[in-house]
Amino acid sequence: MEEIREKKIVVIGGGTGLSVILRGLKKKNIDLTAIVTVADDGGSSGKLREEFNMLPPGDIRNVLISLANTEPLLEQLLQYRFRYGEGLVGHNLGNLLIAALQEITGDFVLAIKELSRVLAVEGQVLPATLQKVTLSAEYEDGTVITGESNIPQVGKKINRVFISPGDVSPLDEAVIALQQADAILIGPGSLYTSIIPNLLVDNIKKTILSAKGKVIYISNVMTQPGETDNYSVTDHLNAIEKHVGERFIQYVIINEGTISDKVIEQYRLEDSFPVLVNKDLLEQRGYQVIADNFVNYHTYLRHDADKLADLIMKLF
Amino acid sequence: MEEIREKKIVVIGGGTGLSVILRGLKKKNIDLTAIVTVADDGGSSGKLREEFNMLPPGDIRNVLISLANTEPLLEQLLQYRFRYGEGLVGHNLGNLLIAALQEITGDFVLAIKELSRVLAVEGQVLPATLQKVTLSAEYEDGTVITGESNIPQVGKKINRVFISPGDVSPLDEAVIALQQADAILIGPGSLYTSIIPNLLVDNIKKTILSAKGKVIYISNVMTQPGETDNYSVTDHLNAIEKHVGERFIQYVIINEGTISDKVIEQYRLEDSFPVLVNKDLLEQRGYQVIADNFVNYHTYLRHDADKLADLIMKLF
Repeated sequence: MEEIREKKIVVIGGGTGLSVILRGLKKKNIDLTAIVTVADDGGSSGKLREEFNMLPPGDIRNVLISLANTEPLLEQLLQYRFRYGEGLVGHNLGNLLIAALQEITGDFVLAIKELSRVLAVEGQVLPATLQKVTLSAEYEDGTVITGESNIPQVGKKINRVFISPGDVSPLDEAVIALQQADAILIGPGSLYTSIIPNLLVDNIKKTILSAKGKVIYISNVMTQPGETDNYSVTDHLNAIEKHVGERFIQYVIINEGTISDKVIEQYRLEDSFPVLVNKDLLEQRGYQVIADNFVNYHTYLRHDADKLADLIMKLF
Repeated sequence: MEEIREKKIVVIGGGTGLSVILRGLKKKNIDLTAIVTVADDGGSSGKLREEFNMLPPGDIRNVLISLANTEPLLEQLLQYRFRYGEGLVGHNLGNLLIAALQEITGDFVLAIKELSRVLAVEGQVLPATLQKVTLSAEYEDGTVITGESNIPQVGKKINRVFISPGDVSPLDEAVIALQQADAILIGPGSLYTSIIPNLLVDNIKKTILSAKGKVIYISNVMTQPGETDNYSVTDHLNAIEKHVGERFIQYVIINEGTISDKVIEQYRLEDSFPVLVNKDLLEQRGYQVIADNFVNYHTYLRHDADKLADLIMKLF
C-alpha cells in the first residue's frame, strides 16, 4: 500500500491577512509552514526590536495565535495590549513573552518552537531570516523613506521596496520548506510591507523560483491606503513579479463576491476601496484564475478562511 | 466502606519559605490551600500595584509556580525578570501575565484561578484579602515606618506591625478553607512582612482561633536582618501570638540539623544567623515540639520540602 503523505503547504506573508488564511488551513490534514516577514519596526515590536536587539515579534505572535489549538483565554492573553504602566503601555503581552523566551533560550527560532509547543500550534512558524533587516521604499518621484511603519504614511505611489542589508541569508528551515512544498501560498496581506519583504531575501526568492510546488497568489480584497491605492489584482501581481524579477505565480485566487454598499462606505472612510478584478486580463496573461465569493463581513471584511482552505485542498 | 477524605491543609505565608514548603506538599494526596499575603509594595509587584490598581502579584506568582505541575521552561518564563527595555527592566513576566489576566477577566481571584488552570496547579491559591492594604511597622523606640519593603531597611527592633485600613475583610474562600482545615501551617517566611500580615486580617485571625484543625508553626532556620535579628524560636512565636492576642499554635517544627561553619559564615556576611532553638523552653510552654534535621543546603539553606511534607502527613 502506498503511503499517504500529508501535503506540504508553505504560506508566506505577515499581518492580519496571513492569520485569517491560517485559521482555515490549520483544520486541514496538511503539513503547514508559515514564513513570516520580520521587517516590522513600529509599536511594541519595534520597541522590543531596538531594546532587546531581537527580531520584531508581532507578526510571528499573530501567526502563532492563529495556528494555536488552545483556549480563547490564552489567545486573549497573548493579544493583550497593556493600557497602563510606565513603559508598559502599548506593549503586547505575547510580544513580551517571546522576548523573555528569547532571552531564556538565547535563540529566536528555539523560542518560537517552545512557544509553539506550549500553544499546541499546528505546523511550524519561521521568520524569513534571522538577520535584522530594515525595509525602505522608493516612491515614483524618486524619494526614499526608511522604516516599515513609515512606508504607508507618506501617501505617494511606491515604485519599489528594498531591504538593508541587501544580502541577508534566509533561515535554512524556510528554504527546505519551500523546496519540499506542494504549494506555496502568497498573500493576502500588505503588499509592500508584509508580502514582498520575504521575497527580497535572495535565497527565498531563488528557492521559490525553482520550487516544484504550485505557486498561488491570494489577492487582497480591498486596497490599502499608502500602499496599493487604485491597484487592480494585476497591479498587485506586477509589483510582486517585478520585485522577484520574473514570472513565477501560476494560480490567482480572486474574490467575485459582492461587497455591500454599506461595507464599501465604511472602508471608503479609511481610503480603502475594492481591488479591481480584471479576470480576462489575468487569464490573457496566463494565470489560472480561481474566482468565487471568498469574503465574510463581520466588523471588517475578511477572507472566508474555511472556503479558501477547502479550495486550496481541491487544487491537489 | 467509609469514604476516604483527602486531608485539608492550609498554608499561610508568603515569600520563598512558603514556596519551598509547597513544593513538598504538592506531591502529597491532600487538599491544599495557600493563603498569601498581599501587602508587598516593592519592585515589580509594587509598581503594578500602583499603576494597575491591583493586588501585588509577586508572592502569588511564586506560590503558583511552586504548586504548578508544568514544565521547567514555563516556570523559568514566569520567573523571568526583564533586563532590558525602558519601563520593562525589573518587571517579572509572571507578574505582567497576572496583571493582563486581571485586566481581561476584571477579577483578581478569577485571574489567579485561570492561571492556576493553565499551569495545572495543585490546590488553590488565595490572597488573604482583596483590599489594598499597606503594612507599617512600629519599632521599639516608638517610630513608625510605612511600606512593606521599607520595614526591614530601618534596622531597628520591631515592636509590632499593623495594616491600614485596619478593618479589611478576608476573602470568603480563605475563611472557609481555614474552617475546614485539618491542619493550618504557619511559616516559614519573613515573620513581620509575610506571616503576620495575614493574621492581621481580622476575620482570618478569628477563624484561625476557632478552627478545629491543628495549628503548626514551622520555624525559620536563619534570622532575617531588620526583622528577626537575635530572635529565638520562642521570640518568633511570641511575636505571632502577641499580634493575634492569644495562644493558638499547638505544634512547632524546629531544625536540629547541624549547619556547617561554611554556611554560617556565608549567612553571617548578610547579617543572618541561626535561629536559636530552645526546645525545653518551648515544651515548658506547652508546645508540641518536633525537632529533626529539616534543612538542605545548595546555594542557600532551605527547608527539606519532602521531609517536612512527610512529617506533616504523619501528624494525622
